[in-house]
Amino acid sequence: MRTRAAVAVAAGKPLEIMEVELEGPKKGEVLVEIKATGLCHTDEFTRSGDDPEGIFPAILGHEGAGVVIEVGEGVTSLEVGDHVIPLYTPECRECEYCLHPKTNLCQSIRSTQGQGLLPDGTTRFKMLDGTPIHHYMGCSTFANHTVVPEIALAKIDKNAPFDKVCYIGCGVTTGIGAVINTAKVEIGSRAVVFGLGGIGLNVIQGLRLAGADQIVGVDLNDDKEEMGRHFGMTDFVNPSKIDGDVVAHLVELTKGGADYTFDATGNVKVMRQALECAHKGWGESIIIGVAPAGAEIATRPFQLVTGRVWRGTAFGGAKGRTDVPKIVDWYMQGKIEIDPMITHKLKLEEINHGFELMHEGKSIRAVVEF
Amino acid sequence: MRTRAAVAVAAGKPLEIMEVELEGPKKGEVLVEIKATGLCHTDEFTRSGDDPEGIFPAILGHEGAGVVIEVGEGVTSLEVGDHVIPLYTPECRECEYCLHPKTNLCQSIRSTQGQGLLPDGTTRFKMLDGTPIHHYMGCSTFANHTVVPEIALAKIDKNAPFDKVCYIGCGVTTGIGAVINTAKVEIGSRAVVFGLGGIGLNVIQGLRLAGADQIVGVDLNDDKEEMGRHFGMTDFVNPSKIDGDVVAHLVELTKGGADYTFDATGNVKVMRQALECAHKGWGESIIIGVAPAGAEIATRPFQLVTGRVWRGTAFGGAKGRTDVPKIVDWYMQGKIEIDPMITHKLKLEEINHGFELMHEGKSIRAVVEF
Ligand SMILES: [Zn+2]
Ligand SMILES: [Zn+2]
Ligand SMILES: [Zn+2]
Ligand SMILES: [Zn+2]
Repeated sequence: MRTRAAVAVAAGKPLEIMEVELEGPKKGEVLVEIKATGLCHTDEFTRSGDDPEGIFPAILGHEGAGVVIEVGEGVTSLEVGDHVIPLYTPECRECEYCLHPKTNLCQSIRSTQGQGLLPDGTTRFKMLDGTPIHHYMGCSTFANHTVVPEIALAKIDKNAPFDKVCYIGCGVTTGIGAVINTAKVEIGSRAVVFGLGGIGLNVIQGLRLAGADQIVGVDLNDDKEEMGRHFGMTDFVNPSKIDGDVVAHLVELTKGGADYTFDATGNVKVMRQALECAHKGWGESIIIGVAPAGAEIATRPFQLVTGRVWRGTAFGGAKGRTDVPKIVDWYMQGKIEIDPMITHKLKLEEINHGFELMHEGKSIRAVVEF
Repeated sequence: MRTRAAVAVAAGKPLEIMEVELEGPKKGEVLVEIKATGLCHTDEFTRSGDDPEGIFPAILGHEGAGVVIEVGEGVTSLEVGDHVIPLYTPECRECEYCLHPKTNLCQSIRSTQGQGLLPDGTTRFKMLDGTPIHHYMGCSTFANHTVVPEIALAKIDKNAPFDKVCYIGCGVTTGIGAVINTAKVEIGSRAVVFGLGGIGLNVIQGLRLAGADQIVGVDLNDDKEEMGRHFGMTDFVNPSKIDGDVVAHLVELTKGGADYTFDATGNVKVMRQALECAHKGWGESIIIGVAPAGAEIATRPFQLVTGRVWRGTAFGGAKGRTDVPKIVDWYMQGKIEIDPMITHKLKLEEINHGFELMHEGKSIRAVVEF
């Protein structure tokens, strides 16, 4: 079949909107009509050429929602008409990782996914001239139709609006999951969140959901305070506006250090601050942000020997087929909010403008609707 | 009263054996006759002058066992004749830290202890010429008699031999506790232990006690292999004798990385190796060793984002008054071994020779008996 897509033809180039050929689903695969997709920093990381593992040409996008159009041979958990969110971290429920209680990093299709291919080692997309186009993070949601392995699709409530719950495919789950699955924050905790972008705001609402008593947001931009407070932030700190050391300031503000701290900046210096403002004896710090290639975190081992714990999280520690439908339900029940974070709606033709909004810091999330 | 002690008169000088004056126990304090004391690297760290926080003159030693001779006003949990192990990490059971489930770092007497004083801000020791002598780590077990706060004494089985269980006052509890309290190792785990000195051997026997399936010991000295195997080590790796990267070698040996790794070397480069040979997705690395002042650990945040956890431990995460008596019982029941680790017995007059044995790597533990 033919479908419309925004194609990353080469590193650093704007995406090109074009008709592409899409082969139908093979064994264990599902054809999905994408109804909406968010634009994430990770897409831009690859598009820009900063991602050393970027492969081109490719159809980017990994934060989508849509409808099952056709299922391949052997697909049992999904049928035509089901509403789904593609998962860049699949859940096969059979591999060593899926069966381990402490991780969500299903490895069953990792090697082909990393090569921009489906599990059989081939691609379903090609240009009209026959040039193969790579998949991206196993999702390729910047196309009106895409083919995804069954194990990488979460079946969700049919009443959920695509243009909102697509964000659960990455940012919402990453932020809320970091609180719930990775940190396992207890009621009454004190927390500090570094970086009040889309991920940071979702960490904040995750903390509110978990019953945290104090939620400190840290950002260099004062404009972020209002939205932070909307999602549950209790204290705002702009490091450029305090005297002296930000770590000492945060330790004092949290009465000895935070029980949990989260880095959503990707800056390795901030990651160190996040660890060091965690409470002596029991404070845990969770790295969410993705650092530039080669960057390293550092601290004195004394910080750990005196009881702090340093962790990281990917996709919020969520097992996607199990957890993503629950988060969609929480949205439908009003337990979490997404609408105020979807700041821009675009048509596919306007997708490059979406990346401009991201760079200008004007959007929390821009969503493309098909 | 007068007692005999080995006094650290100045940084870098040999200890001097002398008679000293010891004042009786004040409110909340206990006079203990020390029967035996181990010599630990931390004592030598201070004696040598390497410890930037060392205070002189002082009576060092923090790994002792003895008998209660007199109790001060208000002491309720101990009586004359009780056998005790002094605790450099006390357990008041009332402070914010004692009441927190995740830490053992009781803070109730921390500031005075750090200044070489008892909780009332004074010292009980002085030289015969009246010069005050500082306490050390709240213990000062290099004296035949010492005064210790009630909250810093674990009451133990009266049948336990002093010359063995004194080692539970530091090394045994640190190593076994790192496994049981800090890592919480599960039955069937794979583990790697870096450094097969006294702490490392106790980590190994802790792993055996916890039911680990694979216990890999790593040391540059082949002579350590025999003792490691005696305590439960299943595989030995000498990094100087393998081709290529030791991390890759250990990941392969543990079939993808260890569930738990322990650094008992104090070397920050080794700490990084320990983290990086932990299993993707769930491996946890525990820092036990004390690094030189100013040294820093580093890694790529990707190591944590892909699921590894970096922790530290002090006194094996043990709450001393609660956990130390249990470890003494385990020794008495034969669940753990100590005897083969007590390689040298010395008289107080020979204590400086004990530090020479430590430097020469000839002792696991030298114990002074009074
Ligand atoms: Zn994303
Ligand atoms: Zn799996
Ligand atoms: Zn010690
Ligand atoms: Zn306490």
